Amino acid sequence: MKKVVVVLGSDSDLPVMQGTIKQLQAFGVPFEVRIASAHRTPALAQSIAENAVSDGAGVIIAAAGKAAHLAGVLAAHTTLPVIAVPVKASTLDGLDALLSTVQMPRGIPVATMAIDGSDNAGLFAVQILALSEPTLAEKLCAYKADLALKVEEKDREIHAQYTL
Amino acid sequence: MKKVVVVLGSDSDLPVMQGTIKQLQAFGVPFEVRIASAHRTPALAQSIAENAVSDGAGVIIAAAGKAAHLAGVLAAHTTLPVIAVPVKASTLDGLDALLSTVQMPRGIPVATMAIDGSDNAGLFAVQILALSEPTLAEKLCAYKADLALKVEEKDREIHAQYTL
Amino acid sequence: MKKVVVVLGSDSDLPVMQGTIKQLQAFGVPFEVRIASAHRTPALAQSIAENAVSDGAGVIIAAAGKAAHLAGVLAAHTTLPVIAVPVKASTLDGLDALLSTVQMPRGIPVATMAIDGSDNAGLFAVQILALSEPTLAEKLCAYKADLALKVEEKDREIHAQYTL
Amino acid sequence: MKKVVVVLGSDSDLPVMQGTIKQLQAFGVPFEVRIASAHRTPALAQSIAENAVSDGAGVIIAAAGKAAHLAGVLAAHTTLPVIAVPVKASTLDGLDALLSTVQMPRGIPVATMAIDGSDNAGLFAVQILALSEPTLAEKLCAYKADLALKVEEKDREIHAQYTL
Amino acid sequence: MKKVVVVLGSDSDLPVMQGTIKQLQAFGVPFEVRIASAHRTPALAQSIAENAVSDGAGVIIAAAGKAAHLAGVLAAHTTLPVIAVPVKASTLDGLDALLSTVQMPRGIPVATMAIDGSDNAGLFAVQILALSEPTLAEKLCAYKADLALKVEEKDREIHAQYTL
Amino acid sequence: MKKVVVVLGSDSDLPVMQGTIKQLQAFGVPFEVRIASAHRTPALAQSIAENAVSDGAGVIIAAAGKAAHLAGVLAAHTTLPVIAVPVKASTLDGLDALLSTVQMPRGIPVATMAIDGSDNAGLFAVQILALSEPTLAEKLCAYKADLALKVEEKDREIHAQYTL
Amino acid sequence: MKKVVVVLGSDSDLPVMQGTIKQLQAFGVPFEVRIASAHRTPALAQSIAENAVSDGAGVIIAAAGKAAHLAGVLAAHTTLPVIAVPVKASTLDGLDALLSTVQMPRGIPVATMAIDGSDNAGLFAVQILALSEPTLAEKLCAYKADLALKVEEKDREIHAQYTL
Amino acid sequence: MKKVVVVLGSDSDLPVMQGTIKQLQAFGVPFEVRIASAHRTPALAQSIAENAVSDGAGVIIAAAGKAAHLAGVLAAHTTLPVIAVPVKASTLDGLDALLSTVQMPRGIPVATMAIDGSDNAGLFAVQILALSEPTLAEKLCAYKADLALKVEEKDREIHAQYTL
Repeated sequence: MKKVVVVLGSDSDLPVMQGTIKQLQAFGVPFEVRIASAHRTPALAQSIAENAVSDGAGVIIAAAGKAAHLAGVLAAHTTLPVIAVPVKASTLDGLDALLSTVQMPRGIPVATMAIDGSDNAGLFAVQILALSEPTLAEKLCAYKADLALKVEEKDREIHAQYTL
Repeated sequence: MKKVVVVLGSDSDLPVMQGTIKQLQAFGVPFEVRIASAHRTPALAQSIAENAVSDGAGVIIAAAGKAAHLAGVLAAHTTLPVIAVPVKASTLDGLDALLSTVQMPRGIPVATMAIDGSDNAGLFAVQILALSEPTLAEKLCAYKADLALKVEEKDREIHAQYTL
Repeated sequence: MKKVVVVLGSDSDLPVMQGTIKQLQAFGVPFEVRIASAHRTPALAQSIAENAVSDGAGVIIAAAGKAAHLAGVLAAHTTLPVIAVPVKASTLDGLDALLSTVQMPRGIPVATMAIDGSDNAGLFAVQILALSEPTLAEKLCAYKADLALKVEEKDREIHAQYTL
Repeated sequence: MKKVVVVLGSDSDLPVMQGTIKQLQAFGVPFEVRIASAHRTPALAQSIAENAVSDGAGVIIAAAGKAAHLAGVLAAHTTLPVIAVPVKASTLDGLDALLSTVQMPRGIPVATMAIDGSDNAGLFAVQILALSEPTLAEKLCAYKADLALKVEEKDREIHAQYTL
Repeated sequence: MKKVVVVLGSDSDLPVMQGTIKQLQAFGVPFEVRIASAHRTPALAQSIAENAVSDGAGVIIAAAGKAAHLAGVLAAHTTLPVIAVPVKASTLDGLDALLSTVQMPRGIPVATMAIDGSDNAGLFAVQILALSEPTLAEKLCAYKADLALKVEEKDREIHAQYTL
Repeated sequence: MKKVVVVLGSDSDLPVMQGTIKQLQAFGVPFEVRIASAHRTPALAQSIAENAVSDGAGVIIAAAGKAAHLAGVLAAHTTLPVIAVPVKASTLDGLDALLSTVQMPRGIPVATMAIDGSDNAGLFAVQILALSEPTLAEKLCAYKADLALKVEEKDREIHAQYTL
Repeated sequence: MKKVVVVLGSDSDLPVMQGTIKQLQAFGVPFEVRIASAHRTPALAQSIAENAVSDGAGVIIAAAGKAAHLAGVLAAHTTLPVIAVPVKASTLDGLDALLSTVQMPRGIPVATMAIDGSDNAGLFAVQILALSEPTLAEKLCAYKADLALKVEEKDREIHAQYTL
Repeated sequence: MKKVVVVLGSDSDLPVMQGTIKQLQAFGVPFEVRIASAHRTPALAQSIAENAVSDGAGVIIAAAGKAAHLAGVLAAHTTLPVIAVPVKASTLDGLDALLSTVQMPRGIPVATMAIDGSDNAGLFAVQILALSEPTLAEKLCAYKADLALKVEEKDREIHAQYTL
């Protein structure tokens, strides 16, 4: 049973989305990765979204660039939380994907991460799943502590090096 | 038989889209107006797009604001030309709707008009239909001549008034 | 026990955030509303975030405008999912709040909604909580069906009215 | 008899516009490519636009960058549908070309594609011509089916590879 | 003999362009005001531009909004200096008009003023004409001195009023 | 002896700049308000900047809109810290003033506040002066405590009112 | 006697400004190139602007990047026409320089060219000078004819090559 | 005793911030460099800000990218002047960092420098400290004179080289 379904609008989004994959792997959250275009394979996108609940998934993560409709289309066909990563895939620095993703109308929310913010999509999925899985909550605490430790180490190192 | 199907993402788009309606009426092109949200009624949007050809339509016009996915979703389900009007419906002056509409990926074109450019959507539909309806082509020539005449009249009036 | 903690950066955000309040009320989700500024009362913001888990909350919703740091600051102090509403509160149409909210660095995700998209923040919280509360899931299905019905009604009405 | 006239504002637009050329070749639509600048050779641009109908063309495709006036100037001199590709040709990521192309005034529509979206310009021309050429309509259906197949293949491949 | 030809893309640009008219009147520079749309009356625009030299004009001022092509089209048909005022005429705050006007390609310059900066268009025309008309140069010096005087007066007044 | 010199590019900036004036009055910091345009009265701007040190001032605050050069011009003529308020004074929502003010080249810093952020300009001046005036430092602490108190009061009030 | 004074805000602007230099050389217009920063050497900038008339210059061309104040500062000290080239010199694609240059307040016009549009700055200076130098006017006509010829040649070449 | 505390949101900001370090070294101002993330180590950021006064610091400089909250978070915990450098660290050219930094709400000012403007952050800190350290004021005058000299040298060199 896959807890997270990661849907890419195109296989060209795969490099950016390695961040999501790594985070889900690191937290031991079962997931699957699908390719489904909102425009080229709307039926496939629809069936992934519609079947996610019965397949036991708790969260859908969608990644798309340019006029990024994928997350919205998936959200139209499910009541599961949909997290979106706007991907920089055009000349416009990802602003098109960001606005296409985040400016959703009332009634169909999409939880938008930063442009190319794929790590955070995985982490946010873990945060949602952790509400009913105490081990994930513990791992998140450990993850945050580790993040802090790494910054503190860097702080000591740089502090020692750059001081007049 | 309706030649043009005008689809609004919401009835709040109706005031802006009166421009399209007036142009189609002026050119005597049969049309119908539908309300279908890409996110709230994806099945309705899909069935409108899929049935348009068999209903005899030649062109679909879509109007939506914010993360305007409607035109893209319709285009995913038809090979008819889809013309889109990005509607100013958020705080962002319509830039979100414009980018969500125009930045379509390869394979599924959407012909984008100006923000709130509803008259031109109707006119462009007429230009397409005119390719196989000579009377429409004649009316377009007359329309253009009339546009020019009105400017020329204004020119004479203003020229006379503002000269030192 | 409050399931959702809604935190406003200022009481001037209250009118925009009525959408969140109404949705949570409509779904019968217990919540509380707090005012805490990331900059004027960082300690208050921190304590709200840190106590949310032990108070039994499952989701935090943050609303702020301009250099909207509130959601990020709350997310720094909790592993609960943080949903954010960038509020239009300056001359820049909310673009400053959107970018300040959504462009979070790796490690600390914030789930960003549309500018002033307060209804969707409430709905997304419900979607998260519904993962472990089957009645909420049913209500969400009913809500979506109702959204669709309203559009379909409008479609029939407008379709009848605007056809040539 | 050329069905589509592709007009480039400069020969530097040729690499981007190979997408249009390839699509028209793939669909077997007769076309010609012209170079005509709205500013350097206005007379040439005008004569191409004015002669397109009598030459038997059904669609004009225009490509230009920066203050991209070419499509608008062509549209001023014809009642044929004009499709435009805003080309990224300056430091501004193509936003200047997009706005110069899409924000046409009432009366003279230009059907705007994505920045550098040359494939879609070709496809949209085919969609228009397909209204009166049933073989093109069939090819479009086959093209869409093929697009979907390729995504589905990628889906199977990636799905097999990335699953925990 | 009119020294300056002021061309408006539409009579709706007239209120904004009163600034130009007032400046030309104040400096006693003979001018005429024309209405000519680059898209609706390209022939009229062309003839105004082509005849300006032989009519004795030294400068052309163009005002247009949205996809503001007028100044570029006029510049294509003359070697006279063309000054442009991008007019705020859409939802995009005039940014579309600014970029459509200023981002001209190599070879056909357009001297762009601020959005709605019609006074400065008139003044810049005077600065150009002043190169061969010493009285205008004197008036410009007086104008600048007067501008400074008014600021200095305000300075004294405010200085006296707001001091702690 | 005036500790702060507040320079406005135009008397139309006065309403926005009342925030600065009120803050300086509240903290009892002696100041004066001047009007000096970088473009209309460059000599006046220069003399204000050059005389500020000998007049005993410690900080200059500049406010200007559109192509806001005033702060940069003052900074060119002094080594005193210059704080700038970009003022919304055009159709572009103050983005022009912000970029014109903040994007200073290496060597001549200008400390930029939010668009129309006049209160903060006054407060930042106080923060600078407080480094050598212990009473101001105490007042700043009190001010911050008061800011927090007001938020906390609002928090209690709203918390009591909006809870389900 | 130099007819055109080209002022660069920094020697790093020299590569971009070769376009201006080449055009002035091609038209045989005497010119000089100066380096003067509005912020680092305001006195030098002022003296160049103030002496330009008595030195016999007819036009000043200014080039600067980021918060590009140079053209405005020069314009403050002269009644000669000032042409400006906003230079892309920061991370913002030149948008900062464009807005800092073009959004001049009423009274002090600056004729703005495209970002990095240095050729056109030279050409516009020639257009201004041509008003009182008939040989320059003839050269401009020849230049325009040559521009057109080159496009027409390219047209023939590409037309022959790309036709189906 | 360190007069300036330079805080980086991440060690990836170090290359950009060498400009600050070099300026502080050049002026002989004692400083230290810290790494502290507003989101990953909020406690560390808070303690650095809270201890700065008692450690004898007079100024804090903060550098961060994307949703750059660091400067605001530091400013929330101190009454010392906080100078911020928005760092280009995402696909958005630093615009996200700029708006996240500069658009601070009333009450908590942050003095914002240009995107990646690290030299100026150091210089502005020196300008503040110079108010109570006359030797620094002298060095600033020398620095400005030197800046001017270098421009004047370049001016002579380029002037000699590029003149027709």
